[in-house]
Amino acid sequence: MKKADKTPEQGLISTTPFPGSKKIYVEGTLHKKIRVAMREISLQPTKLTGGKTEDNASVVVYDTSGAYTDENITINVKKGLPRLREEWIAERNDTEQLTNVSSEFGKQRKEDASLDSLRFEHIKNPLKAKPGANVTQLHYAKKGIITPEMEYIAIRENQRIDALKHKLNGQYELLSQQHAGESFGANTPKGYITPEFVRDEVAAGRAIIPSNINHPESEPMIIGRNFLVKINANIGNSAVTSSIEEEVEKAVWACRWGADTIMDLSTGKNIHETREWIIRNSPVPIGTVPIYQALEKVNGKPEDLTWEIFRDTLIEQAEQGVDYFTIHAGVLLRYIPLTAKRMTGIVSRGGSIMAKWCLAHHKENFLYTHFEEICQIMKQYDVAFSLGDGLRPGSIADANDAAQFAELKTQGELNRIAWKHDVQVMNEGPGHIPMHLIKENMEKQLEYCKEAPFYTLGPLTTDIAPGYDHITSAIGAAMIGWYGTAMLCYVTPKEHLGLPNKKDVKDGVITYKLAAHAADLAKGHPGAQYRDNALSKARFEFRWEDQFNLSLDPDTAREFHDETLPADGAKVAHFCSMCGPKFCSMQITQEIRDFAEKGLQEKSEEFLLGGKEIYS
Amino acid sequence: MKKADKTPEQGLISTTPFPGSKKIYVEGTLHKKIRVAMREISLQPTKLTGGKTEDNASVVVYDTSGAYTDENITINVKKGLPRLREEWIAERNDTEQLTNVSSEFGKQRKEDASLDSLRFEHIKNPLKAKPGANVTQLHYAKKGIITPEMEYIAIRENQRIDALKHKLNGQYELLSQQHAGESFGANTPKGYITPEFVRDEVAAGRAIIPSNINHPESEPMIIGRNFLVKINANIGNSAVTSSIEEEVEKAVWACRWGADTIMDLSTGKNIHETREWIIRNSPVPIGTVPIYQALEKVNGKPEDLTWEIFRDTLIEQAEQGVDYFTIHAGVLLRYIPLTAKRMTGIVSRGGSIMAKWCLAHHKENFLYTHFEEICQIMKQYDVAFSLGDGLRPGSIADANDAAQFAELKTQGELNRIAWKHDVQVMNEGPGHIPMHLIKENMEKQLEYCKEAPFYTLGPLTTDIAPGYDHITSAIGAAMIGWYGTAMLCYVTPKEHLGLPNKKDVKDGVITYKLAAHAADLAKGHPGAQYRDNALSKARFEFRWEDQFNLSLDPDTAREFHDETLPADGAKVAHFCSMCGPKFCSMQITQEIRDFAEKGLQEKSEEFLLGGKEIYS
Repeated sequence: MKKADKTPEQGLISTTPFPGSKKIYVEGTLHKKIRVAMREISLQPTKLTGGKTEDNASVVVYDTSGAYTDENITINVKKGLPRLREEWIAERNDTEQLTNVSSEFGKQRKEDASLDSLRFEHIKNPLKAKPGANVTQLHYAKKGIITPEMEYIAIRENQRIDALKHKLNGQYELLSQQHAGESFGANTPKGYITPEFVRDEVAAGRAIIPSNINHPESEPMIIGRNFLVKINANIGNSAVTSSIEEEVEKAVWACRWGADTIMDLSTGKNIHETREWIIRNSPVPIGTVPIYQALEKVNGKPEDLTWEIFRDTLIEQAEQGVDYFTIHAGVLLRYIPLTAKRMTGIVSRGGSIMAKWCLAHHKENFLYTHFEEICQIMKQYDVAFSLGDGLRPGSIADANDAAQFAELKTQGELNRIAWKHDVQVMNEGPGHIPMHLIKENMEKQLEYCKEAPFYTLGPLTTDIAPGYDHITSAIGAAMIGWYGTAMLCYVTPKEHLGLPNKKDVKDGVITYKLAAHAADLAKGHPGAQYRDNALSKARFEFRWEDQFNLSLDPDTAREFHDETLPADGAKVAHFCSMCGPKFCSMQITQEIRDFAEKGLQEKSEEFLLGGKEIYS
Repeated sequence: MKKADKTPEQGLISTTPFPGSKKIYVEGTLHKKIRVAMREISLQPTKLTGGKTEDNASVVVYDTSGAYTDENITINVKKGLPRLREEWIAERNDTEQLTNVSSEFGKQRKEDASLDSLRFEHIKNPLKAKPGANVTQLHYAKKGIITPEMEYIAIRENQRIDALKHKLNGQYELLSQQHAGESFGANTPKGYITPEFVRDEVAAGRAIIPSNINHPESEPMIIGRNFLVKINANIGNSAVTSSIEEEVEKAVWACRWGADTIMDLSTGKNIHETREWIIRNSPVPIGTVPIYQALEKVNGKPEDLTWEIFRDTLIEQAEQGVDYFTIHAGVLLRYIPLTAKRMTGIVSRGGSIMAKWCLAHHKENFLYTHFEEICQIMKQYDVAFSLGDGLRPGSIADANDAAQFAELKTQGELNRIAWKHDVQVMNEGPGHIPMHLIKENMEKQLEYCKEAPFYTLGPLTTDIAPGYDHITSAIGAAMIGWYGTAMLCYVTPKEHLGLPNKKDVKDGVITYKLAAHAADLAKGHPGAQYRDNALSKARFEFRWEDQFNLSLDPDTAREFHDETLPADGAKVAHFCSMCGPKFCSMQITQEIRDFAEKGLQEKSEEFLLGGKEIYS
């Protein structure tokens, strides 16, 4: 938004565009109405010898920041974001608007006048599939339909490539040749990502498009191993801190730095109202763990949970627009004793809740026994499953143990039930895993879960660095992303120690963004390396501003540079503070280039005249 | 040192012992006089149900912090550290003390009275091998001698294992059983590291012990892939900043947090005097890049460099006590044109200096042509080679190219010359490498360089995150460490942007320490996982202080915890701020444990009575 439009409440929300960047919109071909939001970074020209210059094409990057970084859109968190997908959903003609919310709890909250001051003002009645209809992207994909969501994703995933086709005719063909000599991973398509490819991957269950019909504000994105690796950021209040507006800003902040989805893990009071605010203002899909809220409803006593309370919570959240649910349906009664001798038992909150319920009643997990009914709910709103790994290891000592893999196998069984209902599904994974045991996780997931997308927390590759677990886990995350994990759940520096603040959220997001990008490079994603190349070229040519602007965090890059060389002149200087003005390896290299060219030519002449080896 | 002993100058130096820790010394067996310095972390007892407690054995860890964390030693940077190895060296009876320094430059500096105020006060005349003698650890190893340095290392590498044998008879045998079921890397010995094993690895050229006879203050350490992965921290001033005392504190600070060696990369004025201060106060080996100082001596003009100036610099630094020299002898004239079409040319300072010299004179690199003479110098002081990778890639686009591997092959050729002289040698490696190309670096180094230790900078796995390159590179460092790299050169958050400050140095060291430890875990080093296990057990049992004290950075862990739960009571509370007091998965797990035990027993009885499956 323009600063002039800011009201005091909106002052909390981060809306400044990125430096040197503007929002662009790429139109669809199959679906003319779609306009894919991307960020274009303008670059300075290269200075050549003799005072000449050469232009550098602007770089277009995948953009998760939504309307918040578009100067032409006035942001008002009280009204929520534009409802991008509303028309697309309506045109499918398979949904109907309800006259009231369906869940009992939702009705109570709605009728409670004491909550009016907390409530988002413009709540619409929810959409639901018409009787007998299935409104999931998987259902459409299996029917051979390419939805607007799928085309949006195809354009978005190609990043600059399609955008440049639109903007700079022919430029893409030129640039793509840089990739010709590189090795590409076996998993990734060599050329464009097409709408047909998106559809086929969704139809095969290898990718999901989290897109609840009640979250039309969300910009379509895909989670699957043949696409860019995605990252999730968790936000949430606890008993102690946070206001609703702070929660919204947390989501906006996380998206700004690159979060592809947000999980709202709030456990405090008013989580129903907080969630509404977050969804209405979120340009990315929102995930939740419904059992957390269900537990609140029974005053924190797991043994008092019932299927009915859980079911009502699912409907409540589905009608608000939650895009995917973490459901710990794989924590089976018979697996629980497998955790008793562990170093760190059960560390998943959802896992421990269900384990306690199972033991208290000595009954099978009600999420497992009611799984088909859950599918029936999910497909009426297109909520995707994120099957929780309630028995994930909480320490290096517990990695890859029997409990963990037993649950994974059950996840695979549940995937097949979800697919039977055309409900989209991904699988959650660990956790704490030393490097040499990471690959086994990916291999077993592919095998047991038949290639459904894998969504892992880290994994942390050592336990000995609390305060730095964003890094211990980024190592594992980059590796498992390379091996084929589709989405990485971030870890902040506060992991194991406390609640992340704004700086921690940013540190976590940037760290995971770089890990995901490292994985994209290693997989050979055709849209990955151009950004490294553009930044490296800027670095080599001492285009400091371009180097900052092309980086994942321009603010920090600029701040660090300015710490030792703050003067404006230093940002155009042909040296940096590492070596100082007298001595600079980059400068010497440029001389070598000139030298080598000249020298080689001379030597080449000598060679032709004398008939000798050039270097004898 | 005790705070009471601090003089104002010494106030700059970090000497506080780690919380909950004390310095212990483990005596040798072959060499009774050696006392291996280690850090012992005391743990609180575990609280059991019914008010009972169970003791937790203290944890002994590898300690690079030197005398600075021993409360019983009075630190005085003006006097330097105790000369630990002086007697060992003297007893070998193969060295002699010179009556003056040998280098011309060294003499000039010594005689310059204007430098008196800058000079370390207690400079001794240097030691040198007796005529015809070779004083390298490799030479001794090949002769079958186990030096005190080798036994020191064997004890040190085993970490707690030997220490516990000394302190708590039999405890080690018990704890080692925890490792029985784990997979160990092919490279690492399964059991103890013995003095004989250390000798054999050194004799084979697979490991080096940087240990200049003029740096007797250094605590012996080893660099080789069958030992703990080591990390190096670079320090150095530039044209702009830093006083001598600040430089000493930088070294002390880096060692405090875990640097196994320090490279002094100073390029400013008075680097001779700065280096003396650093060496006299450094408990870890010091490396340098002598060409930097040689370049200063010719006013920064590479083409004016000569073999004679370089030779004098080698002797100057060898007699001060530098333990290893980075020498870019593999940058051959014929390889330089291979870099001309690179994205980022030559990014190594040493590489670009030598390349420019080669092109200016159109002659072969004088470091290559004089390599045997360099070996003659090195063996008289036991300075080890760190053969520089002057043509390492500076961007993802340039990774694993012809220039890089051509130089690596030449490094291998030079290794064999060094070994002929019984000079210890390791090889430097990249740089910027995407994950899928990392393994090839290790494989080629093992092949070309015949298993000499590999010492890599990162590698950085993407170029797009300036400000976070400690992390982009920690991903690559952990992986290449697992694959067999022996030492990892740290990268700070300021890489590519500016000079690291104290916080950056610490961030870099801790990040690399965790990457090295992740590699040790993946390699299955027998002395690695016990620390993860101890910390995870403390975490599970809510022994917060133990969790902090066992971590790589207790200060940050404590600070992060206290941000959301500052009260002292919170540090003994059976919950944390992530979930709050009402709901805690760790607490639930404990209940499950009790439950499961009880439940299983009951069920077991039912089973016995009824003859049924437990879970039907």
